[in-house]
Amino acid sequence: MPKPIPDYSLYVITGESFSKGRSTEDVIRQAILGGATVIQLREKEYCGKELIRVGKLLRDMTREMGVTFIVNDRVDVAFAVDADGVHLGQDDLPIEVARQILGPDKIVGISAGNMDEVLAAQARGADYVGLGPVFATGTKSDAGEAVGLDLVKQVCARATIPVVGIGGIKANNAAQVIEAGAAGVSVITAVVSADDVTEAARQLRHQIDLAKGLKG
Amino acid sequence: MPKPIPDYSLYVITGESFSKGRSTEDVIRQAILGGATVIQLREKEYCGKELIRVGKLLRDMTREMGVTFIVNDRVDVAFAVDADGVHLGQDDLPIEVARQILGPDKIVGISAGNMDEVLAAQARGADYVGLGPVFATGTKSDAGEAVGLDLVKQVCARATIPVVGIGGIKANNAAQVIEAGAAGVSVITAVVSADDVTEAARQLRHQIDLAKGLKG
Repeated sequence: MPKPIPDYSLYVITGESFSKGRSTEDVIRQAILGGATVIQLREKEYCGKELIRVGKLLRDMTREMGVTFIVNDRVDVAFAVDADGVHLGQDDLPIEVARQILGPDKIVGISAGNMDEVLAAQARGADYVGLGPVFATGTKSDAGEAVGLDLVKQVCARATIPVVGIGGIKANNAAQVIEAGAAGVSVITAVVSADDVTEAARQLRHQIDLAKGLKG
Repeated sequence: MPKPIPDYSLYVITGESFSKGRSTEDVIRQAILGGATVIQLREKEYCGKELIRVGKLLRDMTREMGVTFIVNDRVDVAFAVDADGVHLGQDDLPIEVARQILGPDKIVGISAGNMDEVLAAQARGADYVGLGPVFATGTKSDAGEAVGLDLVKQVCARATIPVVGIGGIKANNAAQVIEAGAAGVSVITAVVSADDVTEAARQLRHQIDLAKGLKG
């Protein structure tokens, strides 16, 4: 039986430094209440112990609330907290190592910035790709130039695995990314920096659902 | 059959930023030629991809030259490069996770700064402890106050697993650490910052062997 494909519609990545002093736990709970479907723990400054602590909190919360939970970069942490999968950048561990440690049933996502990286990730067995930055973004200084909606369209036309758009996506442009063929949009600041996190997630989710034709 | 206990005599930790522009590969090869018995890859600034690249180089080299190879912190990287084991700080992943990922035959070492941490590590199944800082050190800003030779003696009298002293150890004080009961000494700058790495390792190893009564 093939493993089920998660609902990638609204993929929220943690960012403690963008969360205005609120705890990651509180912010993520509000995001899920607003309609986030995937949560990724991504805190580059955390030591292993802190990743495990927050990872276990988010694992319990996401399981209880019925959303998917992914850990960034650290395959060992994903294993330790029994996350649903891991997300790897082009500079992280190879996908094969993630598969060996996590087993075939876990999700492995890969960041891609162009068609070649998407097709390579797919060929090596990635479950989804995070494609971007779709629009210009200030959150990731090393994210490179915006790839634009045209590349999203081209990639989504060729890729056989789900494509999640990332980078500079907000409520006012999320629909374009979905209309270009993406399975979902990934955000950090558009949700975690919002004064009302639940409402920000709800607005994004509303635009995504509209674009998918799930709302009339 | 219990797994073999490595020779911890001269345990050299990498430190690219202390290596005066020389490559880690070159420095470590020279250290092994001078008598290093254990090599630990510890580069906190490296991304996963770079850890894998250097880790594979060191894995091949240490295997060929017959010394033990340990990876710091990243259990996933240790797994990926088939290191002999992993070294975990008090803020890293729990030892149980390392065992689950790496299996029972790999080495798991733990950093300890007092008797309680040593006994806890031992109780949880650590293969060895790195105890320190034995002397004052400038290399690790977060290493805390020197524990001194008295604690080394007390720990070595009680611990049933090998104790490796670390922190401020050089050729002129290494013998004291061995005489206090340590199975070996761990160094970074005393070897990797030396103008002649091989000679620095050789002098340290000579003092260690003398203190162990291996040389007359």
